[in-house]
Amino acid sequence: MKLLIKNGQILTMDEGRIIKNGCVRIDNDTISYVGEDVPAENGERVIDARGGIVMPGLVNAHTHTAMTLFRGYADDMPLEDWLFQKIFPAEDKLDPEAVYWGSLLACAEMIQSGTTLFADMYFMNEATIRATLESKLNANISRCVTGMEGEYKNRLSEAEALYDAYNGAGRGAVRVEMSLHAVYTCGKQAMRAVSKSAAKRGTGVHIHLSETMKENRDCYQQYGKSPTEVFRDMGVFENPTNAAHCVYLSENDMDILAENHVGISHNPVSNLKLASGVANVREMLGKGICIGVGTDGTASNNTLDVFEEMKLAAILQKGMRLDSTLIDARTALSMATTNGAELLGRGAERGKLKKGMRADVIILDHKAPNLLPVHNPESTVVYSANGSNVVTSIINGTPVMENRELLTIDLEKTVHGVNESLKRMGL
Amino acid sequence: MKLLIKNGQILTMDEGRIIKNGCVRIDNDTISYVGEDVPAENGERVIDARGGIVMPGLVNAHTHTAMTLFRGYADDMPLEDWLFQKIFPAEDKLDPEAVYWGSLLACAEMIQSGTTLFADMYFMNEATIRATLESKLNANISRCVTGMEGEYKNRLSEAEALYDAYNGAGRGAVRVEMSLHAVYTCGKQAMRAVSKSAAKRGTGVHIHLSETMKENRDCYQQYGKSPTEVFRDMGVFENPTNAAHCVYLSENDMDILAENHVGISHNPVSNLKLASGVANVREMLGKGICIGVGTDGTASNNTLDVFEEMKLAAILQKGMRLDSTLIDARTALSMATTNGAELLGRGAERGKLKKGMRADVIILDHKAPNLLPVHNPESTVVYSANGSNVVTSIINGTPVMENRELLTIDLEKTVHGVNESLKRMGL
Repeated sequence: MKLLIKNGQILTMDEGRIIKNGCVRIDNDTISYVGEDVPAENGERVIDARGGIVMPGLVNAHTHTAMTLFRGYADDMPLEDWLFQKIFPAEDKLDPEAVYWGSLLACAEMIQSGTTLFADMYFMNEATIRATLESKLNANISRCVTGMEGEYKNRLSEAEALYDAYNGAGRGAVRVEMSLHAVYTCGKQAMRAVSKSAAKRGTGVHIHLSETMKENRDCYQQYGKSPTEVFRDMGVFENPTNAAHCVYLSENDMDILAENHVGISHNPVSNLKLASGVANVREMLGKGICIGVGTDGTASNNTLDVFEEMKLAAILQKGMRLDSTLIDARTALSMATTNGAELLGRGAERGKLKKGMRADVIILDHKAPNLLPVHNPESTVVYSANGSNVVTSIINGTPVMENRELLTIDLEKTVHGVNESLKRMGL
Repeated sequence: MKLLIKNGQILTMDEGRIIKNGCVRIDNDTISYVGEDVPAENGERVIDARGGIVMPGLVNAHTHTAMTLFRGYADDMPLEDWLFQKIFPAEDKLDPEAVYWGSLLACAEMIQSGTTLFADMYFMNEATIRATLESKLNANISRCVTGMEGEYKNRLSEAEALYDAYNGAGRGAVRVEMSLHAVYTCGKQAMRAVSKSAAKRGTGVHIHLSETMKENRDCYQQYGKSPTEVFRDMGVFENPTNAAHCVYLSENDMDILAENHVGISHNPVSNLKLASGVANVREMLGKGICIGVGTDGTASNNTLDVFEEMKLAAILQKGMRLDSTLIDARTALSMATTNGAELLGRGAERGKLKKGMRADVIILDHKAPNLLPVHNPESTVVYSANGSNVVTSIINGTPVMENRELLTIDLEKTVHGVNESLKRMGL
């Protein structure tokens, strides 16, 4: 299919290039032209952006997709109660059918809020992959490995089987990675084994890292070193690594991450809501660390709206450090586009509107009052937009939403499936 | 007109009462029934909420409406540069025509994001009142008074004339208040005169209070006391007072506000974005102070979306104090409804869905993926919803938006007016 998106304010994210009145031409799954408005030729289908902002699809660098089932199921509780009394018991009742419908609802929300690529860490992943492929999103999916001594082995086998079966599925839309839940849930053997398995397959590792003060404290008690040092010493960082949270890193930890080219997914909403704290984004950026943004699961957010993360990433650092110049709009925007793609090992092909890149493109509403006037489109996207302002989404050259209408997901059927799953689970 | 909103999840905000499947009956501008679903009678027009959440309209307790003209005009700058190099020079170019169109755009955004009552502090207020009355919103409007010695007098005269002309306009939709910009822009004479004028008219006073550390420091230098103490000593708090920001209050300041029944509008987005800091909401609530939420102007936010403020109000305190139980969903929701109405002197008539109250009602989308599933409607509203999820808004019993379509504002004409105004101003 050939598409021509015309009459847009194009935020390319390619070295800051903004085209006031431009177009994006798409040839099958690839961008073939980005520039001043030109007429259609060769019978492309024309999509009129009507002066709205056209930009790369957003990257959600850390989530647990199927947890949409638990959106709003437990809030405002102490972290331990939330996890052990509510979330873990609920997760115990999950079956692949529930994970499928929960993931599909998440995919609907992600498409409707402009996300075109996400990193998922969970279990029963085949169901999530099925939802991802059907809805035509891009995703890095990983089977979350936990466990001490031998316990982890079945999970790792599942992860490897998942890799063998699905890595590269959907013409590269799906990548399968390895993952380690966290330093407090994985033994050294698990860390070493997952690292080796990832290295053998040439894939990445997705981890939770230094999310809470307690995690660090316990780790020092157990290992006499920081979670970052433990993961490094177990060889994890020899693989491309996506470290989620990183709220409590020492200067030395940051240096280790920088040296090992470990990227970070920053989850400011979840970190506040779960009372974890605020990551030192300014310092980490200063070290040259690649930082994307993530929503985390909807049980701790409670949305998958990357626009919220962009805005909070920008304003939270300003407010914490009492410096309104920190994390400007372009920096926040980069986190959710180019950095996110880079962090997920997709930087060469996604995250920018540029000739030769895969065509993941979103269009914002040209007439939403909250987006007007547009003095500076980067500011509009970061400080004024919310996910519901996305009207059209194109992933790998295929329209998946037009004028807010989902084209790859039957929402009514999905909601029915979610409700039936919750009933079955007694929730 | 008689209306019956049926088939809703009714969040009454009346002592926490939630009706799983209920209706709200409206007789002209007043709520005549809230309860379990009942059939229509007497030929009411029926609005089907289709299972969506039905709740009181939101209250934006602090904004500068016409500043939508400057949305995204200046971001990520040091506060002084932002104000003196960008905002003040831009404001100097305003004329009533520009203020009218800017206010009308703000009204469109407020209606589309569920606000039904707002507190505005600005100038050229007749234009804002015109926009408010046309769009059928409720507002407390005040002419912002600044100035030392005699300087303030013309502004106070304007404020008084405004009161005489418009207080109670639109069958009580518009109330005119007095306002004092801040301790650093108003002399003692201005403070005393405005206090007396408000007392004479029995109206409220809207002020900025302890927004930044610098404001407090300078105030101690000039007066040897805190901004709160200065305002108290000038008699300001003898009137019902809406104090915006209150980021830097001492224990003693809080006690003064509590004793004098001064209410606070908390503006967490603006306080972060302008790098002012984070207000001690937990302590202020502990003192029994009435706290509403405000967006501030769109030059420092950059939206008028009260849903954002609710969510950030809840999660920011959790994240700052490392306690995930602080400011639960109901508390945040109260800030944006009952407390906001109370703070604006409208608590007896607005902020709840209850028989006898004015009919300010909003309905949320029953099918937006980001709102599903609904385990707990209070959580859904605070943690999952954004302004664009509001589909229908009824103010004083009159529908002003249905299925996202604005019924009182011609948006195209408004955007044209905004753009022409900006051209005229050279922006």
